[in-house]
Amino acid sequence: VPANPASLASAALSGDRRALARLVSFVENRAPGADQAVASLAARRSLGPGSPHVVGVTGPPGAGKSTFTERLISAARARGERVAVVAVDPSSPFSGGAILGDRLRMDRHTLDAGVYIRSLSARGHGGGLSRAAGQVVRVLDACGYDLVIVETVGVGQGELGVMEVADSVLVVLTPESGDSVQAMKAGLLEIADVFVVNKADRPGADALVRELAMAVHLGAGGGWEAPVHAASALGGTGVDAVAASLAAHRAWIVGPGRPTWVARRADGRVRTWLDLVGDDAREAAMKRIDAGTLADLRAGRVEPELLAARSRPA
Amino acid sequence: VPANPASLASAALSGDRRALARLVSFVENRAPGADQAVASLAARRSLGPGSPHVVGVTGPPGAGKSTFTERLISAARARGERVAVVAVDPSSPFSGGAILGDRLRMDRHTLDAGVYIRSLSARGHGGGLSRAAGQVVRVLDACGYDLVIVETVGVGQGELGVMEVADSVLVVLTPESGDSVQAMKAGLLEIADVFVVNKADRPGADALVRELAMAVHLGAGGGWEAPVHAASALGGTGVDAVAASLAAHRAWIVGPGRPTWVARRADGRVRTWLDLVGDDAREAAMKRIDAGTLADLRAGRVEPELLAARSRPA
Repeated sequence: VPANPASLASAALSGDRRALARLVSFVENRAPGADQAVASLAARRSLGPGSPHVVGVTGPPGAGKSTFTERLISAARARGERVAVVAVDPSSPFSGGAILGDRLRMDRHTLDAGVYIRSLSARGHGGGLSRAAGQVVRVLDACGYDLVIVETVGVGQGELGVMEVADSVLVVLTPESGDSVQAMKAGLLEIADVFVVNKADRPGADALVRELAMAVHLGAGGGWEAPVHAASALGGTGVDAVAASLAAHRAWIVGPGRPTWVARRADGRVRTWLDLVGDDAREAAMKRIDAGTLADLRAGRVEPELLAARSRPA
Repeated sequence: VPANPASLASAALSGDRRALARLVSFVENRAPGADQAVASLAARRSLGPGSPHVVGVTGPPGAGKSTFTERLISAARARGERVAVVAVDPSSPFSGGAILGDRLRMDRHTLDAGVYIRSLSARGHGGGLSRAAGQVVRVLDACGYDLVIVETVGVGQGELGVMEVADSVLVVLTPESGDSVQAMKAGLLEIADVFVVNKADRPGADALVRELAMAVHLGAGGGWEAPVHAASALGGTGVDAVAASLAAHRAWIVGPGRPTWVARRADGRVRTWLDLVGDDAREAAMKRIDAGTLADLRAGRVEPELLAARSRPA
């Protein structure tokens, strides 16, 4: 396998999955040449129809996101589509971003040449996580995947940012994740295009479905009104209805004039650009600072705000 | 109330809470002069002893974080300490970052002049959230608060970043938030200084406590080993033990040589500086870009990476 991003990009385009995997690592870490490789791949694709359906899957830990992702992969493969999964893990020296259980569950797909599964463990600082996710989705788009699933491991501020790369967002909750007020507090009501209450045989499921449907209805304002499904991903019930709702959402966003589709992609391009600019500035500042000033900053002899003002662009 | 950050800073120092509230809004949005006001306030304080104990409270939505925060406030007030709470909400036009239930629960403290409660709803982009939290904590430090509690509404990448401003992190889980593998996946094992399994009368609580204690023990490596408590915050059981563990953690980090305390604070100052530099660069780039180039970027006629490279610092 060639070692520079440009050659990896060519190999990935012609279907070499090992080259794609190495390229994604370079993109994640912004290795030299990675940005240019993304740009040259992305420039081959137009926005709009022909792009993959990018589906975000989010929700609290333990809600069953991975199980749902697995079901969506199977459904897409049954339709003959090529599928890529980007699992966004927190950067964790302890877990290494890979948990045995999920790996085993996904393993039935790893031998399938039509499925590409990848963990991203971007660092927490700056725009790292959403920047990497946005760039990797554009690479996967160029490589001809029909469905790209972006799955998070938690629910929070960073996850909301990552979900901005998706065309359609599926929020997976369980009766145990609390009432609709908790979902509201976590910012999930605004980003959900489809809700599913998983483990629907447990107490409180019906009440949560009703509450969410009411909250969605009150907040929809004449636009897309997120359907709320009850399901049991492990048992297989309700999964088809969720997949159908995601397909309906896709049909809606690419409908007449495609305002949502085009605007979401365009906003994402601006975000990626600003993330790159911000990260470049941080990296340049870290390179430029001398040891004495850094020691002063750390010891409290100079305040961060005053140091930042010194390097502020005119 | 005077309208510029410098005057607000003076008023806040002399105990004017309305001035403090306005200053925090300016800091959150980086209004002109806010950075200088933070720097001038922060420069009045030294690192190390005398600084407040900054306690982070995180965990999945619905775990009972706000209830625990409320209990920690009451315990600190009983010791005669002044307490500030910074609640980090996602930016949400729907919820407005304030949920009635929590507000009511906290209301018993809002008439207490020794307690300052504040929501932060920083934007998702860049280092906004952790940058704002870090700056606000330094302002509260200067204003003489003894305990600063930083509470998140969810658990995820952004929340992990915010928890980096804390000296001691309390992770609140419930039997329903899943097993220790789920906590591991969400990155909670690495950041927890104290664990509490809330709603401990529910099935699965004992098993979760045992699993967490085992996982903590395996990962501790001779350093601080996060205690794992069972509690019922609503009923009041187990709260004192949690408060005692947080106090023990504080005593540990300020112990001989205080390596943890000093290093955490110093790292935080570097992060704040880099967040400011990154945000400055993003803002400058957005101001500098002309309408035609922005349209080209949005429409896909120029790739984000190529545009970012044009403005990269030499």
